[in-house]
Amino acid sequence: MELWYTEKQTKNHGITTKIKQTLYHDKSEYQSLDVIDTIEFGKMLVLDGMVMTTDRDEFVYHEMISHVAMNTHPEPKHVLIVGGGDGGVVREVLRHPSVEKVVLAEIDGKVIETAKKYFPQIAGKLSDERVDIQVTDGVRHIQENKGKYDVIIVDSTEPVGPAVGLFQKPFYEGIYEALKEDGIMVAQTESPWFNRPLIRQVFRDISQTFPIARLYTASIPTYPSGLWSFTIGSKKYDPLDVDEQSIRDLDTRYYHPKMHHALFDLPRFVEELLEDGEENDAL
Amino acid sequence: MELWYTEKQTKNHGITTKIKQTLYHDKSEYQSLDVIDTIEFGKMLVLDGMVMTTDRDEFVYHEMISHVAMNTHPEPKHVLIVGGGDGGVVREVLRHPSVEKVVLAEIDGKVIETAKKYFPQIAGKLSDERVDIQVTDGVRHIQENKGKYDVIIVDSTEPVGPAVGLFQKPFYEGIYEALKEDGIMVAQTESPWFNRPLIRQVFRDISQTFPIARLYTASIPTYPSGLWSFTIGSKKYDPLDVDEQSIRDLDTRYYHPKMHHALFDLPRFVEELLEDGEENDAL
Repeated sequence: MELWYTEKQTKNHGITTKIKQTLYHDKSEYQSLDVIDTIEFGKMLVLDGMVMTTDRDEFVYHEMISHVAMNTHPEPKHVLIVGGGDGGVVREVLRHPSVEKVVLAEIDGKVIETAKKYFPQIAGKLSDERVDIQVTDGVRHIQENKGKYDVIIVDSTEPVGPAVGLFQKPFYEGIYEALKEDGIMVAQTESPWFNRPLIRQVFRDISQTFPIARLYTASIPTYPSGLWSFTIGSKKYDPLDVDEQSIRDLDTRYYHPKMHHALFDLPRFVEELLEDGEENDAL
Repeated sequence: MELWYTEKQTKNHGITTKIKQTLYHDKSEYQSLDVIDTIEFGKMLVLDGMVMTTDRDEFVYHEMISHVAMNTHPEPKHVLIVGGGDGGVVREVLRHPSVEKVVLAEIDGKVIETAKKYFPQIAGKLSDERVDIQVTDGVRHIQENKGKYDVIIVDSTEPVGPAVGLFQKPFYEGIYEALKEDGIMVAQTESPWFNRPLIRQVFRDISQTFPIARLYTASIPTYPSGLWSFTIGSKKYDPLDVDEQSIRDLDTRYYHPKMHHALFDLPRFVEELLEDGEENDAL
């Protein structure tokens, strides 16, 4: 008997992957949680039927949501991660020696527990003494903490269920307030193939909230379309102004200093999402 | 009733996409041919059970296999396309005003017929007077034509069935001989996620055959992993030495002059494939 996990990534398209077994299934207050053991990508964490991370390709997402912003800020000390309960972003952020404190505001404690048990190579740094884990609504945490963070990373699930509010303008305005005067934010912002109206809206919202807005992409084979976007909002530091020579090499597997600027030379069909006026998102 | 087309892109992983109907099925001397009408990607050409091109994302592959090499050569006049029976590469090559003649050496005449009937926006330029269509084995055409071409583009299917010989060193050596003394070649070279030993081997073979070898990637959602690689071999002109300011803007949707250099700043896990000595291809 062959078992295959199939995920509809859009209404009409998806991936299918052969599994050895299901390791875990549970339902929290917020979402369903599954851990499956696949042949191609190793263990896979699935929330509400959507792949969140896998053993094999997790390095791309976690490096790429972290190091572009972390290397744009000259000395990030206090970092907030909204979501990110699997611990992968914590691991990457802690590679930067300037970091003194990382607050993880994850709404669903079960994600943290599951990651610790099934994904120790991702979650291992959650026990670092610089990490303050708060099982709480990130939106509330933002509202209650003003002018506090150098970098805020929004490592959310898709814009359905508990994460809807994390893709709306009032949330970005709250992040602006929660950052120090030279702070910088970055959020995962979905697929340039399948989520064009969303990306356009988020980029516009972040552009209206922060003086500097930038978008870049990365290849993540288990995410819809295999191409994923990240959007930066910054009060002072422009990712394009970073001196590549000064970026510390962190022993990463996707990001490296020499690609830092190249990331912003986007395919034209992605660039078009960032232009005002153009509203035809068909491809 | 819902119909879904599922393609195993590796032994254990694939895509699945909802279809309206099958438009065409046939078997040629070389392969099976299917045209299906999908909801997400429009019409899809499938050869031997592998997606070759789709209405929606074809622009990426056809632009990206063509314009990097075509813009690296200062004045490409004579171009050979090996494979490429759908006509997409012909269309892109003909955007360059210096081109006087394009030879298309496609082994399977049924691919050409099928593309003309079902993909007119891809195949439309096959009737251009500068195009010489030869239904023939590309390997033989290379052997019989020496010192003739400015640019040779290998737009092959996967390295199974009729295309196996197009991924072997004697073929690249033949291409070297078929090019003029300042000629340049480019080939599609599979996924950096799923075909790592193949990419390493091809890059090594091309590096040993040509003084200049370069690899770059592009996002193609219907191809395995969504990330695809292309490898250039060049006798004289280095893609990295091209002056971006001098590149003509060709009204493309993925490639544009400003990304020309950025394409070669690869993710580190891809860069590792180009280094001698490193033989561990696990991810």
